[in-house]
Amino acid sequence: MSIIVLGTVALDSVKTPFGRRKELLGGSAAHFSMAARLFTKVNLIAIVGSDFPKKHIVFLRSKGINLSSLVTDSGKTFRWEGEYKGDLNSALTLNTELGVLSVFKPQVSEEQRKIENIFLANVDPDIQEHLLRKMHSPKLVGLDSMNYWINTKRKELIKLLKLIDIYVANDQEARDLSGETNLIKAARRLSSFGPKMVLIKKGEHGVLFYSRSLHASSGPVFSLPAYPVEKVIDPTGAGDTFAGGFMGYLAKSGKINSSAIKKALAYGTVAASFNVEDFGLYRTSKLVPQDLERRLIKFKSCFSF
Amino acid sequence: MSIIVLGTVALDSVKTPFGRRKELLGGSAAHFSMAARLFTKVNLIAIVGSDFPKKHIVFLRSKGINLSSLVTDSGKTFRWEGEYKGDLNSALTLNTELGVLSVFKPQVSEEQRKIENIFLANVDPDIQEHLLRKMHSPKLVGLDSMNYWINTKRKELIKLLKLIDIYVANDQEARDLSGETNLIKAARRLSSFGPKMVLIKKGEHGVLFYSRSLHASSGPVFSLPAYPVEKVIDPTGAGDTFAGGFMGYLAKSGKINSSAIKKALAYGTVAASFNVEDFGLYRTSKLVPQDLERRLIKFKSCFSF
Repeated sequence: MSIIVLGTVALDSVKTPFGRRKELLGGSAAHFSMAARLFTKVNLIAIVGSDFPKKHIVFLRSKGINLSSLVTDSGKTFRWEGEYKGDLNSALTLNTELGVLSVFKPQVSEEQRKIENIFLANVDPDIQEHLLRKMHSPKLVGLDSMNYWINTKRKELIKLLKLIDIYVANDQEARDLSGETNLIKAARRLSSFGPKMVLIKKGEHGVLFYSRSLHASSGPVFSLPAYPVEKVIDPTGAGDTFAGGFMGYLAKSGKINSSAIKKALAYGTVAASFNVEDFGLYRTSKLVPQDLERRLIKFKSCFSF
Repeated sequence: MSIIVLGTVALDSVKTPFGRRKELLGGSAAHFSMAARLFTKVNLIAIVGSDFPKKHIVFLRSKGINLSSLVTDSGKTFRWEGEYKGDLNSALTLNTELGVLSVFKPQVSEEQRKIENIFLANVDPDIQEHLLRKMHSPKLVGLDSMNYWINTKRKELIKLLKLIDIYVANDQEARDLSGETNLIKAARRLSSFGPKMVLIKKGEHGVLFYSRSLHASSGPVFSLPAYPVEKVIDPTGAGDTFAGGFMGYLAKSGKINSSAIKKALAYGTVAASFNVEDFGLYRTSKLVPQDLERRLIKFKSCFSF
């Protein structure tokens, strides 16, 4: 079944130990889509400015992504500039230009309102709720956020958590929003705010998944290491790519049980491992489903015994 | 087959968010032994002072550990005092009293010299080499060290790496000794110093294992998450407990192939997860092999799909 992703389409300028790139196509919705399209039809909900290069529209469309709700507004496209140092585990944001993002009111067609799988990637929680309220029959709703909103719109974010199924956060965000240092406790607390499931991304250390509804012999926690990548070129968008692989697989499978969740976590891991191997969307945009399958087998043999 | 462990037997005083304990039985060789004994006969090589409580000797012996080469010298037993805060991932050392450790020359009986499985837990690299040179037919030699020796006896440590099979380090030590931030690169570089295998312990994030000799479909890297423990009471000795489970299983199985290594990593993980659930050796000393087996099954279901 198809999926809707709300988020940003951005122009990213990035510097890593492996070089710098200016105004690459990026943004949470773009990275998410590039992974999720390998599993299902993706409907992208975002806004760009009148300066947004047409070639990027052509490019996204060529990847099969439905852009009927990608709005172009007068003004500048959202831009992000960042730098990674050392072990590339965290970005230093050098500059953010909101541009048209500050006036974003997501559009969604009557047809798209029927879509049951929804991912609310990182934008203002008010915008996320605005879209979610428009949807006719949400079945599986994932939500990502970031420290900026945790700090400035905590109340709105916590209110929104009551309406969703899966909260996706990195380890620092999970600790900040929950007030717990132990990540299992953090996940349990975040789940008590509403979402049945909490997915904590730990970058090079993999992922921790908590569910209070699944009955697995392991208990409420699943955990996977990261796929070992020796040459991390640019981690920008890895978390959104993970979410795209994870939600894309779940949307395709149509099931939410412990077996499907673990496989979805593995697909998210593998998708993210491709993303970090080159700048921007260079690597993930060239993927075909067989690439994921091949790496999934290698990944599995890293820990199966 | 039996195993020899060289290391410390100490009196540990520790403060964690869950309380404080004074002069607990601890030390690298004690923690290692408490896990390895669940797989094979353990021969402990260490030194204690004349102040070492007899009840600890009785206790270790009651666990089936061979203490014939545990030397008692006039002087004080090695003492360590530390504190854990926040997420309990790293200890703050408050005080170290070397005592008799400063005059330690490991003793080993003629019978013990024939033992083929050897673990050189964290002591002065010169002492580690001294013991290793006495052994008649080392087959599988593991080595652990710490930042103190990496900084003060780097040359000796790197020389010693040429003589061993498995170097065991935590992530910070691996980065410090290799000069690489990416842990796979760090492992590869450490392996180039001598050891065919490098095991990097990442605490709550699990373990990364690198081998340049095993031919596995996954490539040279194995990776496992940690077993999810919600209430970490005292992580002191978790790394040594991991090593004890890992080396103990390998010594018992008598095989070094990718399947045995992955299973050994899983046993190490599970043993360490018990260790952190209580102070000192409280939890691991009460374990029977079936406890490991039961938790291994739960652990496997955290990530198997």
